Amino acid sequence: MLIKQVILKKRPEAVPSADNFEVITREMPQVHYGEILCRNLFLSLDPYMRSQIAGRHISGTINVGDVLQGETVCEVIKSKNDDYAIGDKLLLQGGWQTHCVLSPKGARKLDSCIEPASLVLGILGMPGLTAYAGLKYLAEPKAGDTIVVSAASGAVGSVVGQYAKLLGCRVIGIAGAEHKSAWLTDVAKFDACINYKQESVADGLDRLCPNGVDIYFDNVGGETLDAVMWRLALGARVVLCGLMSQLNSLERPAGPNPATIIKARATVRGLVVYDHWSKMDEMLNLFIPMIASGHIKYCEDISEGIEQAPAAFERLMTGQNFGKTIIKL
Amino acid sequence: MLIKQVILKKRPEAVPSADNFEVITREMPQVHYGEILCRNLFLSLDPYMRSQIAGRHISGTINVGDVLQGETVCEVIKSKNDDYAIGDKLLLQGGWQTHCVLSPKGARKLDSCIEPASLVLGILGMPGLTAYAGLKYLAEPKAGDTIVVSAASGAVGSVVGQYAKLLGCRVIGIAGAEHKSAWLTDVAKFDACINYKQESVADGLDRLCPNGVDIYFDNVGGETLDAVMWRLALGARVVLCGLMSQLNSLERPAGPNPATIIKARATVRGLVVYDHWSKMDEMLNLFIPMIASGHIKYCEDISEGIEQAPAAFERLMTGQNFGKTIIKL
Repeated sequence: MLIKQVILKKRPEAVPSADNFEVITREMPQVHYGEILCRNLFLSLDPYMRSQIAGRHISGTINVGDVLQGETVCEVIKSKNDDYAIGDKLLLQGGWQTHCVLSPKGARKLDSCIEPASLVLGILGMPGLTAYAGLKYLAEPKAGDTIVVSAASGAVGSVVGQYAKLLGCRVIGIAGAEHKSAWLTDVAKFDACINYKQESVADGLDRLCPNGVDIYFDNVGGETLDAVMWRLALGARVVLCGLMSQLNSLERPAGPNPATIIKARATVRGLVVYDHWSKMDEMLNLFIPMIASGHIKYCEDISEGIEQAPAAFERLMTGQNFGKTIIKL
Repeated sequence: MLIKQVILKKRPEAVPSADNFEVITREMPQVHYGEILCRNLFLSLDPYMRSQIAGRHISGTINVGDVLQGETVCEVIKSKNDDYAIGDKLLLQGGWQTHCVLSPKGARKLDSCIEPASLVLGILGMPGLTAYAGLKYLAEPKAGDTIVVSAASGAVGSVVGQYAKLLGCRVIGIAGAEHKSAWLTDVAKFDACINYKQESVADGLDRLCPNGVDIYFDNVGGETLDAVMWRLALGARVVLCGLMSQLNSLERPAGPNPATIIKARATVRGLVVYDHWSKMDEMLNLFIPMIASGHIKYCEDISEGIEQAPAAFERLMTGQNFGKTIIKL
């Protein structure tokens, strides 16, 4: 039996494109004692993969010739491990491939009540936990706070904003397209959205946050971060979560002047979701009923077929995706 | 009766020199009901004054023609205020002048047991409180932490390091002269000191902090801050207190890449001493006996005469001072 895989063909120096990847076909590996064979159903594409490819991510490096890593929802189709039966649905590191053979350490068995199952790659998975733990534990949100979130329609940002609304905050999103802006205000019920293709972030903030920004949840870094930092309210909290603006560059650009932090007596914290796995159940218990009742909305950007992964990743890395990027297999 | 004052003659664009100031002589102002006339005994010179001159300090702006502001230890020589008697020693905003006439709101009556009285301008005053509150309340120090402090022999830095030693931390100073370095390790009992004129801060940190920096107390910003940020240990705390590297510039340079904060899951906080006045007694109760018993050392850089203030300020702003800069009048 044959499987298809996406491997890294050459390291990108800027935005990764189809040239940087190769889709190959190979024989299914043997299933050894303790291992399982799974068919991947959904593959998650996430910005952190760009850092893995660049060799500067804490979770490890992808070298040329390696299969790209990534979380998948999969179904067990052969098992040599007594803890897993054929038909089990799992969340694990299945990679950019149609099937995977592995020792299922760290796999999460999926509750059949979660529909669609792809949600465990987004709002009910790592991105959702990032948003939940970052906002709750690092940003110290209070009712009435004005919170700004960048990459606001993305997998993390959309959850940050909606959770902040539940906590009584005033939520301003930053996004780069009119349809994203419209979804954020009309569907996700953000109070407002700055479309940075239509006005500068600085102008948008001056217009929408005349009293400053109490919380900034940053997914991008760069000029956006700088513009917000000069507009922090006294006692502001800043959660640094993502660096989209610099992921496609070999450079390590500078950040905001430290005077911005002193002036506002701000607290700036770095967020890595790996530190917060213990809060997964807490997050699921809150968000599952909220999604079921329609109080939290989600948006997925789904492409079909493993061959689509490189193009979908390029769209993700250039902000052309709309919502959580998923490959359906 | 005549008094001497230092006024701002023209705004400096870089390091302020004698040309930027003028020493003038004028008639003593009248003392109105509720006011006191004081003879200034000691004047404190501090880096924040450079920001006042530049018009970018939260405490207010010094315009051309204004008398420079500054804390003084003074003695009441005439009083039209029942709460103050001739001979009272006070700490107040007496300015760069030999005498001051003012309504003594916010003046602190000085305890005669503090000797020399100039200490209330340094370790037992605003700089000491900055160090105490910043370290205790913003840096979350634990025994065994490795703490790095820049401008280490300065009024704030020398207290930060010695207080951190009392709390069981390992203390590394950064200073720019051999005699400062020697005082820090031999007298103030820092564990080590990086002389950045002899080796880069990066090399010094790699040599002295191979496991990273748990706490960084920053008094300078700029390249020093950047070098430390790339070497933070997991869970590091950074207290941003001073910006000596950029005070003499009209530019607002960039800061460290936010990746440094994310990677270390660091917490970066801005410190402004005005938020911490309520902890003054707590600080004094700790430090007064420590100084008396010789467990905490101090170092003062004293010039005599108000005419010396511009030159002493220039030395302070170029790091040529050694210890707390004081003008004795």
